[in-house]
Amino acid sequence: MTEDAGSYCPAPKVGNSDQITLTHGEGGRAMRHFLRRTILPVVGNEILAEMGDAAILPPLDGQPVFTTDSFIVSPLFFPGGDIGSLAIYGTANDLAVAGAKPLWISLALILEEGFSLSLLERILDRVAQAAHRAGVQIVTGDTKVAPRGTVDGLFITTSGVGVRSYLMPGPRSLSPGDELLVSGPLGRHGIAVLAARERLNFDPPLRSDCEPLFDAIEALRQAGIEVKAIRDATRGGVAAVLHEWAEACGKTMVVEGDKIPITEDVRGACELLGLDALHMACEGTMVVAVPSGSSDEALCALRRVPVSVGAVRMGLVSEQRLSPVVVRRVVGQLVPLDEPAGSPLPRIC
Amino acid sequence: MTEDAGSYCPAPKVGNSDQITLTHGEGGRAMRHFLRRTILPVVGNEILAEMGDAAILPPLDGQPVFTTDSFIVSPLFFPGGDIGSLAIYGTANDLAVAGAKPLWISLALILEEGFSLSLLERILDRVAQAAHRAGVQIVTGDTKVAPRGTVDGLFITTSGVGVRSYLMPGPRSLSPGDELLVSGPLGRHGIAVLAARERLNFDPPLRSDCEPLFDAIEALRQAGIEVKAIRDATRGGVAAVLHEWAEACGKTMVVEGDKIPITEDVRGACELLGLDALHMACEGTMVVAVPSGSSDEALCALRRVPVSVGAVRMGLVSEQRLSPVVVRRVVGQLVPLDEPAGSPLPRIC
Repeated sequence: MTEDAGSYCPAPKVGNSDQITLTHGEGGRAMRHFLRRTILPVVGNEILAEMGDAAILPPLDGQPVFTTDSFIVSPLFFPGGDIGSLAIYGTANDLAVAGAKPLWISLALILEEGFSLSLLERILDRVAQAAHRAGVQIVTGDTKVAPRGTVDGLFITTSGVGVRSYLMPGPRSLSPGDELLVSGPLGRHGIAVLAARERLNFDPPLRSDCEPLFDAIEALRQAGIEVKAIRDATRGGVAAVLHEWAEACGKTMVVEGDKIPITEDVRGACELLGLDALHMACEGTMVVAVPSGSSDEALCALRRVPVSVGAVRMGLVSEQRLSPVVVRRVVGQLVPLDEPAGSPLPRIC
Repeated sequence: MTEDAGSYCPAPKVGNSDQITLTHGEGGRAMRHFLRRTILPVVGNEILAEMGDAAILPPLDGQPVFTTDSFIVSPLFFPGGDIGSLAIYGTANDLAVAGAKPLWISLALILEEGFSLSLLERILDRVAQAAHRAGVQIVTGDTKVAPRGTVDGLFITTSGVGVRSYLMPGPRSLSPGDELLVSGPLGRHGIAVLAARERLNFDPPLRSDCEPLFDAIEALRQAGIEVKAIRDATRGGVAAVLHEWAEACGKTMVVEGDKIPITEDVRGACELLGLDALHMACEGTMVVAVPSGSSDEALCALRRVPVSVGAVRMGLVSEQRLSPVVVRRVVGQLVPLDEPAGSPLPRIC
């Protein structure tokens, strides 16, 4: 065949047109068409449209902050969220709780051969909406397709880059008397995913708290609050955050049992399923530590923002006791709060 | 149980001690122990040791460059490389070919329940060695464990941040007469992985070219070469790079068939398997476009660096012809080079 017999790229045949095939991930024509037709129109912007090996970004005025998270949640959609918005908010929140303004996100998809293209499009719509809401741009990405049976549907890994805007000394600086706030009711994400996966019918359905936290943290910064540490209570829930902080500072975290914010529906589900909301994952709820005496002002700032309108003071840091985290139960006794060894709930995020 | 009955974290029981269990990915004590004992000692540094939600980095003097890639290669080890070094070099190279000095890498692991802990440790050793060689630091990460059967062994997603050091106008700027160089023999990665997966016994075994490219690009920069575009020839091989460039600039890429560098063993394997080395993936080989007349100087700079000692001039950019990429075969005819529609080789990286 000589050159004259050649022809410019016809649209490639990729089997059933609603299915992802291996060719979508192999770097050739099918992949370029897929990126141009399916991904760019939904999540694209000027930087992503360059489709280079890497995104060249504007200079940063300050310290860069960098994070990554993989999302393997099952099912892909659940009341209040989906893997796409989770992947954006999860990474944006990791930047925000480190005191950074989230700016740029990378999106790496691992798809199973045969995955529904229209389902992927729905998920990419959610990604785009979430990015818009969180104020971030998707600037670079990758798509791999794994043969049938080697990955369950879709996994997403997002990384994020932001710029440091709020200096916090971190959990090592915690000292007795510091006050512990929580930005809203606990355990909503974990319970929502569990209920969706196990097809437990709660009426109304329990909704995940999957939301961006930056505005709440920005409200604290603008109010001039000296925050010591912030952490979003994802895997392992509030219990895991408090255990990590106790280890970091060598003090004990005391939680007032009657102050723990839990919605009636989550409380009911936890009782039914024998779970403790303190161990359940949140995806838009954070723990904040502030110096003694500044909790009222901090709560006032938090409550002005929708995502943290339910913020409350939940406890304080005390001198080291025998247990790193204790809960004051209604009878007044301090009961140790176990650190989750693992979790009853795989694939929660 | 009152506080006195509590006790500080004993090492958690996680089943067969050489197996990854779901608890390793659930954000609790088992995960923290796993990170402290298995991950930090191998790939750690001051920034990663903070174990925050995100890495706070020193300010960047210049434009940040950001990239991501997932790695689902099978098998996990192959002659000349493994998933760990591939994940580091792949991402570092994506930064380097965009004109950036690679600085920081994020490492997100998705592990299958039951995966061998000692195998993971071997892979993390390779990650650490590769990071050292590529001059990057692993500053943040994530570990998820998916239930048995929902992921095949181990997938790794790395993202990278670097600082722009070398300005290139990119493939849209290519014009007739520009010369096309390639930094070494083609197809070594694709053939090595294929041979390892299909247990084809070549003697000696075909080795992947999995290597960092930054030094080669830095040699061009230091020699003052005005480079127009660089791309590493990964999925889809050199053919995919040339097709993307042809589309970007609207010109035709002409490859001199007798100049294509291929090792004897790759040539033999390609003939045996009916594959074209121009379509096979490389992981440490790049295509470089330089203005007419500067190829000798560029080759001289490249050949001073071990990774690109085999650099050659492979072709040039011509006015647009009927086919976007053509190869001058030995008889002198220009034969169109197909863009790979997909690839015969899933899970090559």
